Amino acid sequence: MENLDFSLLSAIYVNCTLKKSPENSHTGSLIEVSKAIMIKEKVRIDEIRLIDHEVATGVYPDMTEHGWEIDEWPSLFKRIIEADILIIGTPIWLGEKSSVAQKLIERLYAMSAKMNDKGQYIFYGKVGGCIITGNEDGVKHCAMGLLYALQHVGYSVPPQADCGWLGQVGPGPSYGDKEWSGKKLQTPAGFESDFTNRNSTFMTYNLLHLAAILKANNGYPSYGNSRKEWDDGERWKFEKP
Amino acid sequence: MENLDFSLLSAIYVNCTLKKSPENSHTGSLIEVSKAIMIKEKVRIDEIRLIDHEVATGVYPDMTEHGWEIDEWPSLFKRIIEADILIIGTPIWLGEKSSVAQKLIERLYAMSAKMNDKGQYIFYGKVGGCIITGNEDGVKHCAMGLLYALQHVGYSVPPQADCGWLGQVGPGPSYGDKEWSGKKLQTPAGFESDFTNRNSTFMTYNLLHLAAILKANNGYPSYGNSRKEWDDGERWKFEKP
Amino acid sequence: MENLDFSLLSAIYVNCTLKKSPENSHTGSLIEVSKAIMIKEKVRIDEIRLIDHEVATGVYPDMTEHGWEIDEWPSLFKRIIEADILIIGTPIWLGEKSSVAQKLIERLYAMSAKMNDKGQYIFYGKVGGCIITGNEDGVKHCAMGLLYALQHVGYSVPPQADCGWLGQVGPGPSYGDKEWSGKKLQTPAGFESDFTNRNSTFMTYNLLHLAAILKANNGYPSYGNSRKEWDDGERWKFEKP
Amino acid sequence: MENLDFSLLSAIYVNCTLKKSPENSHTGSLIEVSKAIMIKEKVRIDEIRLIDHEVATGVYPDMTEHGWEIDEWPSLFKRIIEADILIIGTPIWLGEKSSVAQKLIERLYAMSAKMNDKGQYIFYGKVGGCIITGNEDGVKHCAMGLLYALQHVGYSVPPQADCGWLGQVGPGPSYGDKEWSGKKLQTPAGFESDFTNRNSTFMTYNLLHLAAILKANNGYPSYGNSRKEWDDGERWKFEKP
Repeated sequence: MENLDFSLLSAIYVNCTLKKSPENSHTGSLIEVSKAIMIKEKVRIDEIRLIDHEVATGVYPDMTEHGWEIDEWPSLFKRIIEADILIIGTPIWLGEKSSVAQKLIERLYAMSAKMNDKGQYIFYGKVGGCIITGNEDGVKHCAMGLLYALQHVGYSVPPQADCGWLGQVGPGPSYGDKEWSGKKLQTPAGFESDFTNRNSTFMTYNLLHLAAILKANNGYPSYGNSRKEWDDGERWKFEKP
Repeated sequence: MENLDFSLLSAIYVNCTLKKSPENSHTGSLIEVSKAIMIKEKVRIDEIRLIDHEVATGVYPDMTEHGWEIDEWPSLFKRIIEADILIIGTPIWLGEKSSVAQKLIERLYAMSAKMNDKGQYIFYGKVGGCIITGNEDGVKHCAMGLLYALQHVGYSVPPQADCGWLGQVGPGPSYGDKEWSGKKLQTPAGFESDFTNRNSTFMTYNLLHLAAILKANNGYPSYGNSRKEWDDGERWKFEKP
Repeated sequence: MENLDFSLLSAIYVNCTLKKSPENSHTGSLIEVSKAIMIKEKVRIDEIRLIDHEVATGVYPDMTEHGWEIDEWPSLFKRIIEADILIIGTPIWLGEKSSVAQKLIERLYAMSAKMNDKGQYIFYGKVGGCIITGNEDGVKHCAMGLLYALQHVGYSVPPQADCGWLGQVGPGPSYGDKEWSGKKLQTPAGFESDFTNRNSTFMTYNLLHLAAILKANNGYPSYGNSRKEWDDGERWKFEKP
Repeated sequence: MENLDFSLLSAIYVNCTLKKSPENSHTGSLIEVSKAIMIKEKVRIDEIRLIDHEVATGVYPDMTEHGWEIDEWPSLFKRIIEADILIIGTPIWLGEKSSVAQKLIERLYAMSAKMNDKGQYIFYGKVGGCIITGNEDGVKHCAMGLLYALQHVGYSVPPQADCGWLGQVGPGPSYGDKEWSGKKLQTPAGFESDFTNRNSTFMTYNLLHLAAILKANNGYPSYGNSRKEWDDGERWKFEKP
């Protein structure tokens, strides 16, 4: 029987806009679309706007042990690791994900020595996706980097785990803008895009489905992927070539 | 209970080397490592060396309908779509996946209008990964593009779904080479790499686990991701912003 | 005094569309915009539509010496190396340059052992750029790969050496299309884009300027960059760290 | 006659390591190799370790006008724009350039509305390159993004404008490390790499050559690339398609 009850799941959105609150984040506006679905599906939701926090730069779990005075990452990480689903939101600058998104990846990567009690990397069993907005170009390129990083540290990636919106080539309004260049837009930019609406929906539901399936399965069996067991000499059916 | 019986699964490796048989493919040598695990785990295995086939260039399912005299893609596609797991192997040239791998992506993409009987894209429920070899640089970059394409057309990506080997920076032996620059190597290049061996093992098992889990689940429920239903007006819990 | 006489220069466009002649190439339509400027500036022009030629796959200068029956690359290469300026045109598929463009890079790379009479890589002193069209996303990503490859083999890259056009996010007309989805467009898609027109113009002129400057300078001095001299032991002011 | 006098040139290195001074930066060690050549060639040198400065995040020239209390960027930018040559150094994390490098790009991009007195983008006539170190993988991928950004804002890119060092696949020493995993290395990691030494040398000299050539030419003529003139309606030989 198909499971369509998502009320046991939790999801966290990390918005990697370059703009501090309370400035308007266009990426945040598209995050709202996905979040609204999750809320109606009774998923427990958390959200972090990373630039609002003093997150140190570096590749250790806690940079206050490496010369930084403040590092909010350890407390943010607790919220991230608590969630079944991680969705990274980023704007595009010069065709690339934001420096804030890159910093998030560095800090997630910094945790990759941590193991769960099966000896697997700590993100195993969790599911990841991404939401990207720009005014012109780069959703797929940014998604390549973000989804790669997510699966590398241990997240699973369901089908069509990215969504986004882009304006027309050249300068123009960003997602959700109500005017551009002094002129009022008939509808906020992107809100009518069937493509963006559909992809945001499919991404959201596919993240839910895979998270639910993996949760019901108690994550991945540790057979063949336990870092601890490998280091202890276990090789399962692998044979050196 | 954990499922560790993979005998109902099938996997296909598509080697995107630039070299026709019977030339030695270094990527093929690393594919063998993963394949050996699969075989011992009783998975049904298929393999395609794409360059050995006359695959037309283009973005239609059958290019003989678009001016090409020969196109083996339709018959190759049947073998690919029949498998639960697709693993793309590619060498690296100038930091990029091979033109043959790019052509494979174009042809997979060409099939993305096809739906399964739930109205989902046809690759839903299947699982993908990649194997990359080079003599110096680029495993992660190539994996970004390949895994992105796989999830985009509908494959699911488990944790650490890429593996590879790189030699030292600058010219040097490729994976499996027994000599380099006229000198015999003590062991074939890369065979002793704990990193490559471990990643190849983890990738292989994670593909098996996720494929088994999804198969047991009969793929993804179509709630929230059926292209057919979306086109018919269904929106589930999505609301226009 | 500024040189604005480009009549001694030659340029070659290589269109890496996936479509054989006489099918319409959208990338070809944007190439025409740049070419028209060049022609009015009296530059000698050549153009290759790569897919119309039987170019073998591989990384050797002539693949007929490596098992391929036909390989038109050696004769095409003569035309490419004869030109002061190389402009690569490519469509975008799934956010990536075409497999034909990737093959072109592989074949250019295959020539990188060739030296000019100063002992420099053979493309030194020449100038490169790229023209990219898609219906939605990826100009910058494709340009990153193409311009990187060009400078790697020895081309110089002037400011803003890429140009392109993208339609709105989601399915839509491609560059130059006169109708879409059964409806006539008021003007061909992209023709009115000030952004695309300006970038195409700037790219074309910057390629001309840098090519003219380098030609007047007889290319690069070999001091500090002659592969031959390095291999002979010359180190100029480099000192091992 | 060839010009080999570089004493009128200036160059700035921006090290985008994640580590604050006085921690050892491996990227900094490779920067030293290039810098040593420049110094012997009498080039005026400046260097910024970006993480040591309080550079705000954002895409405006001065973020203190946008809610940030401190922003050292305006004073750093003065040093960058004063130099004929910009070389960006970055470490690799998960196959990507550092978040600090990404922030640098965002801030350079933020200046792209500034024009020189010919109406060209302000970086026209300047030359850029990059230096990349990692312990395993990603020099070319990082260089693709960095060189693309440099040419996009107006820098020119000479042949082989990137250099770097990578260790063997998997964990290992970083550039310049004298020991690894408790064991002393015979020579510091990478110092003997002919490949890295040669590429660092060629990059350095090619940057010098092109900077000298462009300086002698007083940059690029504004014919065909002046943003100001384009906005005023000038089109040179461009014609709307």
